[in-house]
Amino acid sequence: MRRGIVGPVRVEDRDAAALRPPLKAKPMLPTDCSVDTARFWSTIETSATIGVGREGGLSRLALTDDDRAMRDVFVTWCREAQLDVRVDKVGTIFARRSGTDDTLPPVFVGSHLDTQANGGRFDGIVGVLGALELVRTLDDLGHVTRRPIEIVNWTNEEGARFSPPMVASGCFAGSYALDWVLSLKADDGPRFGDELARIGYAGDHPVGGIVPDAYFELHIEQGPILDAARMEVGVVTHAYHSHGLLANFSGETAHTGPWPMEKRRNALAAGARLLTAVDDIGLDHAATGGKGTAARLVAWPNKAGILSDWAQIVCDVRHEDEAIAAEMQRRMMEALEAAAKRTHCGYDVLDTWNWGGRIFDETLIALVRDTAGRLGLRHQDLPSQAGHDAYFMARICPTVMIFTPCRDGITHNNNEFVSEAELRPALNTLLHSVVARADRG
Amino acid sequence: MRRGIVGPVRVEDRDAAALRPPLKAKPMLPTDCSVDTARFWSTIETSATIGVGREGGLSRLALTDDDRAMRDVFVTWCREAQLDVRVDKVGTIFARRSGTDDTLPPVFVGSHLDTQANGGRFDGIVGVLGALELVRTLDDLGHVTRRPIEIVNWTNEEGARFSPPMVASGCFAGSYALDWVLSLKADDGPRFGDELARIGYAGDHPVGGIVPDAYFELHIEQGPILDAARMEVGVVTHAYHSHGLLANFSGETAHTGPWPMEKRRNALAAGARLLTAVDDIGLDHAATGGKGTAARLVAWPNKAGILSDWAQIVCDVRHEDEAIAAEMQRRMMEALEAAAKRTHCGYDVLDTWNWGGRIFDETLIALVRDTAGRLGLRHQDLPSQAGHDAYFMARICPTVMIFTPCRDGITHNNNEFVSEAELRPALNTLLHSVVARADRG
Repeated sequence: MRRGIVGPVRVEDRDAAALRPPLKAKPMLPTDCSVDTARFWSTIETSATIGVGREGGLSRLALTDDDRAMRDVFVTWCREAQLDVRVDKVGTIFARRSGTDDTLPPVFVGSHLDTQANGGRFDGIVGVLGALELVRTLDDLGHVTRRPIEIVNWTNEEGARFSPPMVASGCFAGSYALDWVLSLKADDGPRFGDELARIGYAGDHPVGGIVPDAYFELHIEQGPILDAARMEVGVVTHAYHSHGLLANFSGETAHTGPWPMEKRRNALAAGARLLTAVDDIGLDHAATGGKGTAARLVAWPNKAGILSDWAQIVCDVRHEDEAIAAEMQRRMMEALEAAAKRTHCGYDVLDTWNWGGRIFDETLIALVRDTAGRLGLRHQDLPSQAGHDAYFMARICPTVMIFTPCRDGITHNNNEFVSEAELRPALNTLLHSVVARADRG
Repeated sequence: MRRGIVGPVRVEDRDAAALRPPLKAKPMLPTDCSVDTARFWSTIETSATIGVGREGGLSRLALTDDDRAMRDVFVTWCREAQLDVRVDKVGTIFARRSGTDDTLPPVFVGSHLDTQANGGRFDGIVGVLGALELVRTLDDLGHVTRRPIEIVNWTNEEGARFSPPMVASGCFAGSYALDWVLSLKADDGPRFGDELARIGYAGDHPVGGIVPDAYFELHIEQGPILDAARMEVGVVTHAYHSHGLLANFSGETAHTGPWPMEKRRNALAAGARLLTAVDDIGLDHAATGGKGTAARLVAWPNKAGILSDWAQIVCDVRHEDEAIAAEMQRRMMEALEAAAKRTHCGYDVLDTWNWGGRIFDETLIALVRDTAGRLGLRHQDLPSQAGHDAYFMARICPTVMIFTPCRDGITHNNNEFVSEAELRPALNTLLHSVVARADRG
């Protein structure tokens, strides 16, 4: 089954759009135009009641009943705002606000409403609900942008229930085949496609087929840099190079007592060896900000008294420097082979993924930076270290990310926090940047 | 909660029994007395239909519906043989055949009917159904032994659903407290005590309180020695020294991307490090038959994109030499501490266990060896490398094990096999040894 396509797709559509006659830019929004943070915060508070996890946190995994409940609320809000809502075949929700010229490609603004198993209340949620607040603010202002604006809620960004993460944006960008995404199996058993239908979000809209004018994604930083520097807005200039791996080991069950070590094919031991090596790779590169993560290990039978004949792992390595990241990835793949060899197990690479580099659009980066400056906000350039749907969107259209600080950089944890006041600068940067882009000549 | 008691219990009861006037031994069974292997095999075949796993195997985990179904069949067979059936508070089934002097302590003969998740059809099953065949044969012969004989089916020998293994015999021998056993949690959630009640085997008989005259356990070897040497019967003289560990690691969830390596507390990485070290310890001692086993690792949330804040492991090391086993255990505990330290995680040892050494009764070993010789069977002495209920029984009464070969030593695997004809020698050795013991003066 087709899984990956290297590089962007449908470039010809972008070229066609570029052949239009030049337009004159609309005047910029006055700098005193602002989102209503109290109204925005009330949407965050409503979201925080759906899929409650540990105290203060959320556990709203993709395609669960909680995901459905949050989608239902979000769609209601979008319809109340007179937006045209459509859902594509992987469940991604698009809510469109018409422009003065609806023949122009839309500006996409979005992120994701799903969370990790011990997720926080902000994460990508601020990106989706921030886009909704942007639209509500434009309604208050009576401002209709030249280009349409579409709010996007991507399905399963987290990969917390279906590996790998970011499959919906990956599918939209042509990097994952639709049937492959729909056939993914949840950690708890069911198929992606079946769960999508069960929660009522198996839309009939084709996946992709549109090349947006631009894609903006507001997200919490998920790191400590902005908070430590007391910055209000992060201008994301590039992304850490990340290499991920989803692999199976196959061995043979046998007794943990009499069965000789030299005959053993313990898949759990193979998985443990690989994850240990990946943690070591991360520690070896800690001084320059490198990461190596043992993320997931499941085995069968995984019981006292018996060797496991199957194990599945998810792990990744990340570094800001492309060459170092590539070297870390080489070590990870060597460790995979070494772990299998040492334990006499077979292995099967189910998926690999890599993101990162200077993938964001320089024009949009400058727009966000200038906008934050024009609004008099403390801002700084920084890289993104996490994975985001923006990485896939950057393959098909000009893309940029805006970060808001989060307290102590804590994320994917129920203690993730950012205050209403701390969110205002990034929300306004998003508002003014998106409008400038949508209204440009 | 009390978990362990060092050394045997209720020794005073044994001394009291020893004060009786001497008895005269009954004449031995003629050597041509034999079990009915076809009848025995039919019970094995019935058992093989209950809790079917992969082709040819069983997956009959303790206190499941399948375990209940097998128990029901076994109890029916026992009642048909006029045995007096009782069940104790941890679900162990005792089926008593009266002797000519029921004031004498009974001879216990048993093993376990539960299996591993990818278990075979023989394992401990041959020990319980072999004891039943022994009783049926004595009925055919019209032979009533002087001492009563009790067939025993121990609950949860395998530990495949509730860790640790052998808790029922451990509780009988006073090594585990009743309330601790009943409070054990299954890998799939429910409590031991609740599952016992659910399947209708929460008996009212006290656990222990009886010191048997002897305990015999027939079991497949679970190793390749007898099959390779074309031996018919294994006389188990001692047991590998085994040290087991059940431990938790505690860390903190965080993002797999931005969160710095030096701040990470990834419990999954801690578990992987310990299991890797234990596998290494086993490999380092492979040349002298040592084993180190990564048996089980579960973590939470155990998802792509998030560090795990909890992991639980089960592992063990084994060696025939006591001092080497102790050294391996020291390394395992050092690795536990090193894994926690390296990953900034906490750890909590929930249980440790150790078995092995020259724990079996020399008189009974000689009886089994002489009996096999008298019956003209190819037999050899050998150690046991797996864990068995006999290890706990050896703490309170004279105990011995008899091994039957299994094809290529394959066990805890659906391809475990031993033929009807290959089982006959060990079954007859059990018959003649038990009768000699029960009838002795």
